[in-house]
Amino acid sequence: MIGVAILGHGVVGSGVAELLMKNEKKIAFSVGQPLYLKRILDLRDFDVPYADRFTKNFEDILKDPDIRVCAEVMGGVHPAYEFSKQLLAAGISVVTSNKELVAYKGAELLALAREHGVNYYFEASVGGGVPLIHPIYRCLAANHVEEIAGILNGTTNYILTKMLGEGVSFEEALANAQKLGYAEKDPTADVEGHDACRKICILAALAYGKHVYPESVFTEGITKITEADAQYAKSCGRVLKLIGRVKRLENGKLLCMVSPAMVNQQSQLANIQDVFNGILVRGDATGDVLFYGKGAGKMPTASAVVADMMDAALYPQNCPSLYWEDDGVDHVENHLETTSAYYLRVQGEHAEKELSEIFGSVSVLHREDALPDETAVLVDPMRERDFQNRLEELRERHLSVLGQIRLLDY
Amino acid sequence: MIGVAILGHGVVGSGVAELLMKNEKKIAFSVGQPLYLKRILDLRDFDVPYADRFTKNFEDILKDPDIRVCAEVMGGVHPAYEFSKQLLAAGISVVTSNKELVAYKGAELLALAREHGVNYYFEASVGGGVPLIHPIYRCLAANHVEEIAGILNGTTNYILTKMLGEGVSFEEALANAQKLGYAEKDPTADVEGHDACRKICILAALAYGKHVYPESVFTEGITKITEADAQYAKSCGRVLKLIGRVKRLENGKLLCMVSPAMVNQQSQLANIQDVFNGILVRGDATGDVLFYGKGAGKMPTASAVVADMMDAALYPQNCPSLYWEDDGVDHVENHLETTSAYYLRVQGEHAEKELSEIFGSVSVLHREDALPDETAVLVDPMRERDFQNRLEELRERHLSVLGQIRLLDY
Repeated sequence: MIGVAILGHGVVGSGVAELLMKNEKKIAFSVGQPLYLKRILDLRDFDVPYADRFTKNFEDILKDPDIRVCAEVMGGVHPAYEFSKQLLAAGISVVTSNKELVAYKGAELLALAREHGVNYYFEASVGGGVPLIHPIYRCLAANHVEEIAGILNGTTNYILTKMLGEGVSFEEALANAQKLGYAEKDPTADVEGHDACRKICILAALAYGKHVYPESVFTEGITKITEADAQYAKSCGRVLKLIGRVKRLENGKLLCMVSPAMVNQQSQLANIQDVFNGILVRGDATGDVLFYGKGAGKMPTASAVVADMMDAALYPQNCPSLYWEDDGVDHVENHLETTSAYYLRVQGEHAEKELSEIFGSVSVLHREDALPDETAVLVDPMRERDFQNRLEELRERHLSVLGQIRLLDY
Repeated sequence: MIGVAILGHGVVGSGVAELLMKNEKKIAFSVGQPLYLKRILDLRDFDVPYADRFTKNFEDILKDPDIRVCAEVMGGVHPAYEFSKQLLAAGISVVTSNKELVAYKGAELLALAREHGVNYYFEASVGGGVPLIHPIYRCLAANHVEEIAGILNGTTNYILTKMLGEGVSFEEALANAQKLGYAEKDPTADVEGHDACRKICILAALAYGKHVYPESVFTEGITKITEADAQYAKSCGRVLKLIGRVKRLENGKLLCMVSPAMVNQQSQLANIQDVFNGILVRGDATGDVLFYGKGAGKMPTASAVVADMMDAALYPQNCPSLYWEDDGVDHVENHLETTSAYYLRVQGEHAEKELSEIFGSVSVLHREDALPDETAVLVDPMRERDFQNRLEELRERHLSVLGQIRLLDY
């Protein structure tokens, strides 16, 4: 029997407790011995059948020699960071769903885990219940990862699905998402792309071995997307998605960004609907592999946390393949130096002529109910700095830029 | 440094050798030490840079104390079975891509691995390079698997994609598949569903803990599918796929079968095109998770084999969660006792009236270029035995049954 503990009895924490008890036998079979939930840290009181296991004192977990694995599902950097450090230093493996903590302190916590011969696992931090982290560092471990691109945030995917599929406005779709519990009251972290940014940072570090801080990743949310853009996307066989992606460029730096993108309707990413997540991993041997499922929610996330707890219990020694370092260097290429094809929507007289003069050959798109003097086009791939300079030229010619969205081919 | 060996230097075996050498550093990083390919067993001679490592004598591998992990990629049951047994009994972990062997001898080989404290891994046996087996017994290990349904054979999916998407005939699509190297000269195992059957047997055993023999699984291939069926599928918003599936029924038995099915266009399975595989796993905590990628091919399969070799090298002790037993009981429910909705295509006078009389309410489908007196309908779910009995009644009323395909909702 292996003692385990949970830090935080919120949505995920209570799901972890529930799952450990509900599927106790299956878990014992898989680990070869039972996992015993000995302690739960929370400052609140709960009226649950396992109320006797609660403590308000972190030392009760840290100092308990029975506890070999601890799930940190508090969220936020503090005090989760301090608790995790103390646990790892005490030789207790830590598993977490805390993407913010991993995105900021992952390298340090992984080093600490290695130093003390235990593990720091975080399957639930990206893709919720979808197996993703473990498959990358274990099942695809014989591959060099060439590229990762994914729909990493269910809330924004729900909003875009509604906008594109049912023609509702961003505001209405967001209100629906809030009503259904998919979006927080303050939806900033989701709709501005910060949540997806933390997740792509984790995947980038995992795939390329160097810590990537959210601040160095160009991040654009979906707040500027309009129904008009959605209509134009449809008109050219594309679908609007918020894509987080990372790949290694020829100069050794990483292209790493979060932004709306128009992807081909045939793409596997185009078919990820509603609150689902889908993450494409391109390996040099295996080609494209896609992982799909619920990226959030109490039980899916608990499923990933408990699987990590089981893994840490089964193989207590440090896993060498789950590791990256923070070498103090920013490995992310300035987004202005990267290349992309674009969708562009402008308003003004003689726009088509001006666009052709400035961008060379463009494909003109059409929609019903276009605004007066509205023109939308697709432009060929170019360096983003050049693209932005040409937008400046457009503005000098008295055209207003109503929308600009990258085109991606997956 | 850990010594490894390969049995068989065919397509997969040469891919494994290539990958072990090409991604040597990445592999050493992930395992914490290098894997050294010491021996390759093959009766043929090869002109390759590593020709000095070949042997024609199995004992050279079995008796080599340096070799801790061996990849069996010979295919076929014999002598792969005898070699695997000897290796496991000698304390050498075995990893394989050999679905036939796992489908017939999996329980015995897993028991032998457990007895000798080593591992028998077979990630590459289902889904080729797609991480699937490992995610099920590790990442979803906290879940009870409720159901698995998948496109498990790339060749037949390619043929169906061409028939449905481009309106080509079965024969033409098969000829194309053979030209592209997707289908063997003798395509029986693919088109009759035997390949998919072996794979669903492996997944069934993995998910439910009991060995399932291919003989007890109702298996129907795609040879009876016509362009007419494909057109009718399209007309009702469905897509024709060859689906292998397993779920536990309320009576404790397993529904396990391979058959063509019409799935909803919105389904994730409907969007799996060409030679790709897609496997949906429904867990009680995590909900639907889908794994997608190349289900065959030299390097994708090698990627899965090498990942298993790395896992076996990293954690030599037997993994308790990868296990099932052969208790001599046939756990598969007779397919005639299972329930399904159906698409049905008949020919004869007054068919619509006769169909309504026999099946109750039916939805009539339409297509251009229908045969004279052809009628196609969708009928409500019923026990398969009842369905077959009613087909008998139809025949007694002088209607010929041209096609019958299950409807599945995923």
